[in-house]
Amino acid sequence: MKLASLKNNTRDGALHVVSKDLSRCLSAEGIAATLQQALDDWDNVSHKLQKLSDELEADPSVGITFEQSNCRSPLPRAFQWADGSAYVNHVELVRKARGAEMPESFWTDPLMYQGGSDSFLDPYENIVMPQDEGFGIDMEGEIAVITDDVPMGVCATEALSHIKLIMLVNDVSLRGLIPGELAKGFGFFQSKPSSAFSPCAITPEELGENWKEGKLHLPLLVTYNSMPFGKANAGVDMTFSFGQLIAHAARTRPLEAGTIIGSGTVSNKLGDGSPGKPITEGGVGYSCIAEIRMIETINYGEASTPFMKFGDTVAIDMQDEDGTSLFGRIDQTVQKAG
Amino acid sequence: MKLASLKNNTRDGALHVVSKDLSRCLSAEGIAATLQQALDDWDNVSHKLQKLSDELEADPSVGITFEQSNCRSPLPRAFQWADGSAYVNHVELVRKARGAEMPESFWTDPLMYQGGSDSFLDPYENIVMPQDEGFGIDMEGEIAVITDDVPMGVCATEALSHIKLIMLVNDVSLRGLIPGELAKGFGFFQSKPSSAFSPCAITPEELGENWKEGKLHLPLLVTYNSMPFGKANAGVDMTFSFGQLIAHAARTRPLEAGTIIGSGTVSNKLGDGSPGKPITEGGVGYSCIAEIRMIETINYGEASTPFMKFGDTVAIDMQDEDGTSLFGRIDQTVQKAG
Repeated sequence: MKLASLKNNTRDGALHVVSKDLSRCLSAEGIAATLQQALDDWDNVSHKLQKLSDELEADPSVGITFEQSNCRSPLPRAFQWADGSAYVNHVELVRKARGAEMPESFWTDPLMYQGGSDSFLDPYENIVMPQDEGFGIDMEGEIAVITDDVPMGVCATEALSHIKLIMLVNDVSLRGLIPGELAKGFGFFQSKPSSAFSPCAITPEELGENWKEGKLHLPLLVTYNSMPFGKANAGVDMTFSFGQLIAHAARTRPLEAGTIIGSGTVSNKLGDGSPGKPITEGGVGYSCIAEIRMIETINYGEASTPFMKFGDTVAIDMQDEDGTSLFGRIDQTVQKAG
Repeated sequence: MKLASLKNNTRDGALHVVSKDLSRCLSAEGIAATLQQALDDWDNVSHKLQKLSDELEADPSVGITFEQSNCRSPLPRAFQWADGSAYVNHVELVRKARGAEMPESFWTDPLMYQGGSDSFLDPYENIVMPQDEGFGIDMEGEIAVITDDVPMGVCATEALSHIKLIMLVNDVSLRGLIPGELAKGFGFFQSKPSSAFSPCAITPEELGENWKEGKLHLPLLVTYNSMPFGKANAGVDMTFSFGQLIAHAARTRPLEAGTIIGSGTVSNKLGDGSPGKPITEGGVGYSCIAEIRMIETINYGEASTPFMKFGDTVAIDMQDEDGTSLFGRIDQTVQKAG
C-alpha cells in the first residue's frame, strides 16, 4: 500500500491511503490520524490500512483526487533521521577529488550521520536559504526506509523485517559549510538543513521484485532545471543494504518506531569502474551536483558546474517499468529567505 | 512551574504539574495529555498549566504523591536533541591531554552535534550496554533547554525568549567508540547512546536570579558510586549562552517546538586557570570521567580512573540555596544487556 500525509494545518498532516497509480486517496482518520500514530502500533494498524487500500483499489469511484502538491512529507517531523552513505563509490570520489585516500574500512564499516528530523520540508516546498553564493546549495537524491521498533544489537538480516515503508529523499546539503564543520570534528549540523521526502511512503510489497535483500533495484530519476541529470540505479553499487545500515544504527541503542534511515546519495560506477558519465554522454549521470564537480575536478583539474542558485529547481522521482511514478515526485525550487 | 511525564504505558507518558518541593503532582490531562502536545501550542496551553500549578501550590491537600522513580524523561522521545559544547575549558582539556592545540575559533564558534532523540532513558532507568570494557562508558552531566518554534536565522538575544523549559541531562557517552567515529568524519553516532533527563522540566522563572542571560548559575551535583564527584557551577566558564547555542542551531533551518538544546559537559577552571581539582582536595570535581582522566594524563602521564563498569551508579542533581532538589534526580546504574 501507499500512504501520504495531506496538509490540514496541523504539525503532522492527515494520514491518507493512496491508490497505486497515485490518482486517488482516502482519509485514514478512523484508523490513525497521523502516520506516526500508525507506526506506533503498526502490527495492529497496518492490516486496517491495507484493507482501506484494497477498497480504494477495487473501486475506481472511491476516494478523492490525490494532489501531490497538497502533501506534507509522509512524516512531517520524525523522532529520528539517520542517514548512511552506502554508495561508497560516491565517498571514494569525494576523497579522490581532493587527492585523499579513502580508508579501506569504509568498505566494511558504514558511514552514518544523525540528521535533524524536527522540520522536514514538504515534497513541493521551496528550499529557502539566506544566501546561495558561498553556501554551495546542493541536492542529494536518496532512498530512505521507515522502521518500527528495532531492538538494540539487531543483526542485518533480522533488521530487514523492521522495514515498514520506503520513500525518496532530497537530503539538501550546504557544501560550502561542510569543510568547516567537519574540520571541527562533530559532524554535520548547519551544513544539513531540512530534508524533503517523496509524497508517498510505500510498503516494500509495492516494489515487488525490485525490492530485494534490502536494496531498491530501480533508477532514481533526478531532474535539474527541467533537464535529466541523474538516473543511477539505487540497487547497483550499494555497498551496504538497508539491513546493514539499520544494524549499524542500532548497535548501542534501540531505534523507536518511525525512525527514518537513509541510503546516502545514490551513485553508480560505469562498468569499467570509472566514475559515471553525464546522461547527455550516455551515462547514468548524478544524484547531486557535488559528484559531477568531483568528476570535473578529476578530469579537468577544476569544477565547472556551479551549485544551486536562487530560482534553480530539482525534481526527484522513481518509476516502475511502465513509467508510472511509484512514490510521487519531490519538486523544489531554491528561494531567497525573507 | 515544574512539569513531569509519568509512566502510563504509552510512548510519551502522562503530563503532570509538580509542586515546587517535588512532593506532589496533578495530572494535566484535561489541558494537554503529553508534554509535546503542550509545547505544540505553548502560548495557549502554558497559562492553563500555570493555573493548575498555582492551585497545587496553594493547597497542600491537593494532588497525589510525586514519585521521581515513576517518571519518564519529560520528553520520552523528542523531535530534536542538539547538544552543544559550551564549556570550552572541557574541550581544551580533551585536546591538551592528547597533546593537540585547540583552534582559536572554538572560543567564538560553538561546537554542536545532532543527537538521537527517539529513545531517551527514564531518569531512573539503567544504562544497558552489551559490554563495558572497551566501550568506555561515561556520564556527561549537562543542562538542557526546551524551545518552542524558533525561526531560521534567529539572533542570540531573541533566541532567549524561545526557551520555555530547563532540564538536567546525562548525555551517556561511549568513549571507547569516539576516536574511531570521529576519525570517519561524520561525528558521533554509536558513541552517543540514549541520554536520560531529570524527572522535571521547569520554567526559567522557577530559577529566579539563578537564571541569567541564558545561563544557569548553580552547581551541578554529580555523584558517582554514592560519592560526591562533581559540583561545577553551570553558570561559570560557560563560553556560549543558551541564546548563542540556539542561534547556532537555527542558522540554516527553523527549530520546531520541543527541540532540546544541551550545554555540553559542565566544567569549571580553577581561579588560576588550571584544570579543576577533585572534590576530596577542595576542588569542584568533574561532570564526566573523561575529564578526571584528562587531568590525570596531564599531571601523571596516564589516566588511572577507569570508565564505568557494570554495577556502577551515577546521580545528577541540582539544588537551590536551601538544599531542595530543583529538577529531581537522574539516578542510573550501568547494566549488562541480555
